[in-house]
Amino acid sequence: MAEFALIQRYFSDLSPLGQDVLLGVGDDCALLQPPPGRQLAMTMDTLVAGRHFFPDVDPVSLGHKALAVNLSDLAAMGAEPAWALLSLTLPEANDQWLQGFVRGFGSLAGRYGVKLVGGDTCQGPLSISVHLTGFVDSGKAMLRANARPGDLVCVSGTLGDAALALRLLQAGEEPGELRERLDCPQPRVEEGLMLVRAGVRTCIDISDGLVADLGHICERSCCAARIEAAKLPLSPAFRNHAGSEGALHAALAGGDDYELCFTIPPPLQPQLDALSFDITFIGEIRPGQGVELVDEAGNRMELPRGWEHFSS
Amino acid sequence: MAEFALIQRYFSDLSPLGQDVLLGVGDDCALLQPPPGRQLAMTMDTLVAGRHFFPDVDPVSLGHKALAVNLSDLAAMGAEPAWALLSLTLPEANDQWLQGFVRGFGSLAGRYGVKLVGGDTCQGPLSISVHLTGFVDSGKAMLRANARPGDLVCVSGTLGDAALALRLLQAGEEPGELRERLDCPQPRVEEGLMLVRAGVRTCIDISDGLVADLGHICERSCCAARIEAAKLPLSPAFRNHAGSEGALHAALAGGDDYELCFTIPPPLQPQLDALSFDITFIGEIRPGQGVELVDEAGNRMELPRGWEHFSS
Repeated sequence: MAEFALIQRYFSDLSPLGQDVLLGVGDDCALLQPPPGRQLAMTMDTLVAGRHFFPDVDPVSLGHKALAVNLSDLAAMGAEPAWALLSLTLPEANDQWLQGFVRGFGSLAGRYGVKLVGGDTCQGPLSISVHLTGFVDSGKAMLRANARPGDLVCVSGTLGDAALALRLLQAGEEPGELRERLDCPQPRVEEGLMLVRAGVRTCIDISDGLVADLGHICERSCCAARIEAAKLPLSPAFRNHAGSEGALHAALAGGDDYELCFTIPPPLQPQLDALSFDITFIGEIRPGQGVELVDEAGNRMELPRGWEHFSS
Repeated sequence: MAEFALIQRYFSDLSPLGQDVLLGVGDDCALLQPPPGRQLAMTMDTLVAGRHFFPDVDPVSLGHKALAVNLSDLAAMGAEPAWALLSLTLPEANDQWLQGFVRGFGSLAGRYGVKLVGGDTCQGPLSISVHLTGFVDSGKAMLRANARPGDLVCVSGTLGDAALALRLLQAGEEPGELRERLDCPQPRVEEGLMLVRAGVRTCIDISDGLVADLGHICERSCCAARIEAAKLPLSPAFRNHAGSEGALHAALAGGDDYELCFTIPPPLQPQLDALSFDITFIGEIRPGQGVELVDEAGNRMELPRGWEHFSS
């Protein structure tokens, strides 16, 4: 197809043959050699115009984001990114748009050594599906199901920036530096690899919002979590807008920052302190079920709901 | 997500944990153990409403077809199907529609031992992306690039049935038993495995039409092909409608039957004759480039163009 040939041209630097890629784009299938002794982590996410992004979004940002949301899933398992397949549905083949999309996708792919090995293009309403495979040492992947009562609940980076940026834009306000977090989220790939090496066993990426995603850990691990509102890590830019209606909601239920939420047994804390990225302890895992939010006095606060497709 | 939970419920029989599936649907990624000493074949295809199927198509057929087109890519490599990820974009969560879709997808998945290991659902214009991984013995995959002058050109089954059915439907005529080939194409998975075991090195699935797909073999193998119109395998149902305008075009340029086109050195012919499916020798590979069609007198005939998205 002419269009995949176009994409392939821009991606040629990202699709080299090698020890693991025996055959990339251009046959019925890609042909891949998995590394001996490692397991594969696989994810696939689709972004749909009007649902996950504005149809007139900058194609560079969109290319970045389509890969970033999938890299974030690998990060949450502690997997090393390897191979991508890309399926691109476009209303029309616009060369300038495609150049931008490929630049955004390709730049992030290059940063993490992701090789594009296949995919397709078709005509239709704008949407993008990306499939990613990563490698993880046998038995080392971080899972949602490994939390235990007594574990500390931790998050990387700061929360709510992207959701607050969206809220401000929708209200006609200028989100300033928060905008970068919405348009160009940085998946926590290195951070996930550091965590798994440090012995962390439980992690999820915050794509649906802290409360919803920590809730997934609780559900899978058959336990509860209590988080302290005052401990939520907020960026200076977020605090500048903290008066905005819904700022706390953004921090609790906004997921588009793609930070990691993970739990650790307390003896692991010194090893985490030695890691070179921001980690905040926001609460603990307890017996029971569900996520509870408390204020500084220990009083229970109301919880916002996370993002759910087709929710009523 | 409620909807993926729904799909998961219907699919639960198809998503068992086991030696190769350590973790399926329900975490950030699936966690998979590749078999030692084998290579992975990966493909991903998207079907878009209004482009690849009528929006009101029977969901059972659609579920079947979304998996079948990807199985056909594995068949063309001679790979054994293993793991699927499914991304489903739906205008609304209609339980009855989903039940039908899952029945069609699941029935075909069960037939080939395909395990659904992940994916997502989202709201938007109807479209389906499927990613499939298959296993192939190291160095044995059938590739487009392995054809050599002197090879015989072969096809499985019969050609043009699906395309002729579509043409008849569009003309308001009843396609009869041809309709099954359009709605419910059977990927040639066992046939692909038999071919690779018989030593066949070159294959493609006919998804864009015989001429276009054989053209891909020629391009990748740096050679030409000459096919004889009189040798094209046509079904009795096809011959019943052979008077229809464009019947030859359907056989040459219709790809929706998902048959296999492959080439073999002549000494391999006895081994193919022993295989338990219909194989027709339709021409030969020659030096040069491009695909040439000749009539019984050896005169060159005009070629139709294959299906190409965004083509003018």
